[in-house]
Amino acid sequence: MSRTRVQHFSISLDGFGTGEGLSRQAPFGHAGERLHAWMFATRFGKTMFGQQGGTSGVDDAILSTFAVGIGAEIMGSNKFGYPGWHENKDWTGWWGANPPFHTPVFVMTQHKRAPLELEGGTVFHFTDAPPADVLAMAREAAGGRDVRIGGGVRILRAFLKERLIDHMHLVQVPILLGRGVRLWDGLEGLEQVFDIETTASSSGVTHLMFARKGG
Amino acid sequence: MSRTRVQHFSISLDGFGTGEGLSRQAPFGHAGERLHAWMFATRFGKTMFGQQGGTSGVDDAILSTFAVGIGAEIMGSNKFGYPGWHENKDWTGWWGANPPFHTPVFVMTQHKRAPLELEGGTVFHFTDAPPADVLAMAREAAGGRDVRIGGGVRILRAFLKERLIDHMHLVQVPILLGRGVRLWDGLEGLEQVFDIETTASSSGVTHLMFARKGG
Repeated sequence: MSRTRVQHFSISLDGFGTGEGLSRQAPFGHAGERLHAWMFATRFGKTMFGQQGGTSGVDDAILSTFAVGIGAEIMGSNKFGYPGWHENKDWTGWWGANPPFHTPVFVMTQHKRAPLELEGGTVFHFTDAPPADVLAMAREAAGGRDVRIGGGVRILRAFLKERLIDHMHLVQVPILLGRGVRLWDGLEGLEQVFDIETTASSSGVTHLMFARKGG
Repeated sequence: MSRTRVQHFSISLDGFGTGEGLSRQAPFGHAGERLHAWMFATRFGKTMFGQQGGTSGVDDAILSTFAVGIGAEIMGSNKFGYPGWHENKDWTGWWGANPPFHTPVFVMTQHKRAPLELEGGTVFHFTDAPPADVLAMAREAAGGRDVRIGGGVRILRAFLKERLIDHMHLVQVPILLGRGVRLWDGLEGLEQVFDIETTASSSGVTHLMFARKGG
């Protein structure tokens, strides 16, 4: 049974999934790299960037499941590019010639383009369809495997509000961003839909696993 | 050295320390007892209400430190009473004839009263002084022991903003309240002041210990 999953999505202790002031130079605004430093400290995270070493504890183990069972991703316009990327016809995302997805990726945007095929099996599709319709397309493309909801924050909220998520892994980082885009707005009572398991890591971050009740 | 401490203060996953719609019948508004159910499940929590049984794991162990080393408490008007309590001259707080404090308690309010002495050593003092001045009074009254900042949320924020807290124990409860009074507003960068240690409990709550750096 194909599931819809959120993986390794980092939020601050005060619930922000990105900072304020996003730009091409600052993809996460004033948050900088602080939300994702835990990833880059792991063996798997370093390997993604061609580096050696890294930790091999629970953070690394969970992060290593990034591609396991995933057949497609859905992401928002703000994950694919900086504010204004649609005016740059040469923009192909943040990830270079061989992005880490290796599956079809559906970018939810008002600025439609022809599909963009890069190395390693990543094909970006651009769609202005609503969440449930994009999910149907992604599920079809995933060929029986799971669909990753890749963010950003507003995309997660949209899919959570429509109760389209089966499993969500959040990583709470012990920093107070104070401003940016908050994940939790408008999600009162979400615990009625999910069983929530919490695991603190010695790195300082806390893993939160949301599994749909009865799922 | 007398410290200023926050103990066992519960917040929801989205950071609310109380719900919306506070009243005499609903001291925490729409949050009901959900923020504090973890306490009432412990042996120490049950003992406070004259009951038997309860869990004896990490939640109970930490909660059992409630009075250890504490010589005075500071609380806000909304912790002492319901909205409008000051118009009720017979109001003596939520806690009955023998409140669990057993120390001087300084209530920060615009509605001053004569000191109120109850059984068991609890004496409520009512003051409209600013945080640093109230802390000086409470520290004097504590006779070398620590001062507890008892809440509610706005009082914690006020003392945090003025960097008056040495140690803070928060309990993050896996519920999404969606509305109420949020602890984290205006506290960007608080992690620069504190070392933060996180421990997940099998009860589902997460203990966060903030210890002032170099303290």
